[in-house]
Amino acid sequence: MAKTTRKTAPVSNHPPVELAIVGSVGLDTIETPVTLKERVLGGSASYACAAASFFTQVGMVGVVGTDFPKRYLNLYRQFGIDTDGLQIQKGKTFFWSGVYEQNMDHRSTRITELNVFADFCPELPPAYRTAQYLFLANISPDLQLHVLSQVKRPRFILLDTMDLWINVAKESLLKVIGKVTMLTLNEHEARHLTGEHSLVKAAKALLMLGPKYICIKKGEHGSILFTRKGIYLTPAFPLEVVHDPTGAGDTFAGGFLGALARSGLVSESAIRKAMTYGSIIASFGVEAFSLDRLKKLSLPEIETRARLFRKMGSVL
Amino acid sequence: MAKTTRKTAPVSNHPPVELAIVGSVGLDTIETPVTLKERVLGGSASYACAAASFFTQVGMVGVVGTDFPKRYLNLYRQFGIDTDGLQIQKGKTFFWSGVYEQNMDHRSTRITELNVFADFCPELPPAYRTAQYLFLANISPDLQLHVLSQVKRPRFILLDTMDLWINVAKESLLKVIGKVTMLTLNEHEARHLTGEHSLVKAAKALLMLGPKYICIKKGEHGSILFTRKGIYLTPAFPLEVVHDPTGAGDTFAGGFLGALARSGLVSESAIRKAMTYGSIIASFGVEAFSLDRLKKLSLPEIETRARLFRKMGSVL
Repeated sequence: MAKTTRKTAPVSNHPPVELAIVGSVGLDTIETPVTLKERVLGGSASYACAAASFFTQVGMVGVVGTDFPKRYLNLYRQFGIDTDGLQIQKGKTFFWSGVYEQNMDHRSTRITELNVFADFCPELPPAYRTAQYLFLANISPDLQLHVLSQVKRPRFILLDTMDLWINVAKESLLKVIGKVTMLTLNEHEARHLTGEHSLVKAAKALLMLGPKYICIKKGEHGSILFTRKGIYLTPAFPLEVVHDPTGAGDTFAGGFLGALARSGLVSESAIRKAMTYGSIIASFGVEAFSLDRLKKLSLPEIETRARLFRKMGSVL
Repeated sequence: MAKTTRKTAPVSNHPPVELAIVGSVGLDTIETPVTLKERVLGGSASYACAAASFFTQVGMVGVVGTDFPKRYLNLYRQFGIDTDGLQIQKGKTFFWSGVYEQNMDHRSTRITELNVFADFCPELPPAYRTAQYLFLANISPDLQLHVLSQVKRPRFILLDTMDLWINVAKESLLKVIGKVTMLTLNEHEARHLTGEHSLVKAAKALLMLGPKYICIKKGEHGSILFTRKGIYLTPAFPLEVVHDPTGAGDTFAGGFLGALARSGLVSESAIRKAMTYGSIIASFGVEAFSLDRLKKLSLPEIETRARLFRKMGSVL
């Protein structure tokens, strides 16, 4: 499973990794107006890998400390996630604590302890290097570039980022943006990075940086895909109750890439369909804390909601 | 045209009124970060009637003062709006002045002068009373009830309202909600009226009040139609530049009802299609101040954008 826990050379018994996901793995303490959950499994790689696992063989690249609970490693296994790329380093696992305000529409961070994540250097196991699909979840752009130096021409690379890197590592960020197929970011980040308030103008500016596709995430209002030729609007699946929006963007991204990998295609049509699956998986994800809903989720449930979702968007 | 200006009995030379719209007519002074427009044509009835006029014969019910510029009456005529229901009363026209903050996402009211609108009592000309479609735009619920007492069983009644009436006339508002086919309101109003933060829960509560359809407007994020059986999501048409969002909701409502009247149907499928047209007309409307964009708009332009819009929403 990982360097420090394995005594013998790895003998992979997984199917080949179709999708490699590089991101954070952490323990989250989350407070909402009604619940407090302490040290539950979180991190972009956890959410994205779990979401993708419904559709394809996914391999995780990340780092945890020696305090990382075994039950979470077992949970990854339960999802069928290949964890050969998950390093276990001496020290404590990345820890984040946040509070959601009333109505869950704003959250604030209480504590961020990088711990072993501070010295994370992503190394892809050989079997991941030929993966056709790659998700560079939100880590430093320099590490994302380091990952790109290890892979052999994936068909589709999705990049996520955050405000912090726009502020402190813009040059590296622009470099990595220039090397990916698709960039995903939220409304605020799109405006911040381009200086354009209009999302249409922001997306045009972002397309000039290299990616063929720009996906702007609008949370409960859905997402918009911009290509050089057109625009595709995906609403969010409407929910009665949202218990925990943490990781929704990563769940969307993982579900999207998983579905895209399953299709075996990278066409615009395939991308549009895959975005629907990203939305659906994310809508399940926020129904409970951590991976609690995803771990009970089945493919038939996903397909049922996807059919309902398509009906909601179609003119009868 | 109206009581005080007409010397002889009205001889209608219009086709029969299919859609009657009752609302405000006003003069607006609007300030945006880049432009100041003084005393331009505004009011819910102006926007809604202009939008509907592309699809059906619409009749306007409202009131203006003797200061109301003739060129605006001519503009209504240019749109083919029947103004037999527009009263011209001694005094000044309703005046509103507002300022949009940077990025146009928040506006504040500077001045509201009700003027002749303070004593408005909507009276429907006989030819309007048999209209099959009726829009009760945002006026006091008591006046909306007064309008309902004059009509002969329209096939479809759309009701709009605002926060003010939820606060000061809730009982009358609930009464009129109980008599209409469809209620349209924004996210905030839906939450305020029901006490439910989740739009799905709010809509369920609103459906219990009587309407068959609830349409929750989310501005640049589109709108959601709720029925007892399901949900329909309509995104907004993405624009590079928004010059003036004033009246967008009324333009949406007028375009929607106009398109519905044109279809001759009131089925859920017809409603869904008509909502797309509402979105499209509203997207044109906000491209300029007042009715400046709508007065240059043509049906082929509308259909071209509608086709593009459908493509944006469909999984290829």
